[in-house]
Amino acid sequence: GDVQAGRAKAMQCQTCHGLDGKSKLPEAPHLAGQVEQYLVKALKDYKTGARKDEMMSMMAKPLSNADIENLAAFYSSLKP
Amino acid sequence: GDVQAGRAKAMQCQTCHGLDGKSKLPEAPHLAGQVEQYLVKALKDYKTGARKDEMMSMMAKPLSNADIENLAAFYSSLKP
Repeated sequence: GDVQAGRAKAMQCQTCHGLDGKSKLPEAPHLAGQVEQYLVKALKDYKTGARKDEMMSMMAKPLSNADIENLAAFYSSLKP
Repeated sequence: GDVQAGRAKAMQCQTCHGLDGKSKLPEAPHLAGQVEQYLVKALKDYKTGARKDEMMSMMAKPLSNADIENLAAFYSSLKP
């Protein structure tokens, strides 16, 4: 994944997860420094519906595989 | 949740998540310093089947609500 492209795409994630990857509300996990492969799977599972969450399904649905890989690269690159 | 009780219970989590909360394999997320309420929900969802993962379903099934709260307290208390 491309970290810079992921950072740009993360504008839509920042209300809950921050651009620093630190959770901004108690139901959202921190993402900074999280395992990249785990983040890819989480987003793919939200996109397909294998993992269910009203907000995350809505956010993940329009993401391409490239978006998902870039977002995972960006968030996993941040210092926890 | 009770951090010390959670640490004792976490003996069964450590192969994948470590007693330090740092992932030991690419499909397992880091848990150290993760948002406590998020960890409680994740374990409850694995226990009920709302969230699906072969390994985590097996691990979460026998956990009591107290176990879940203690594990979440323990892992969220660790330095990421």
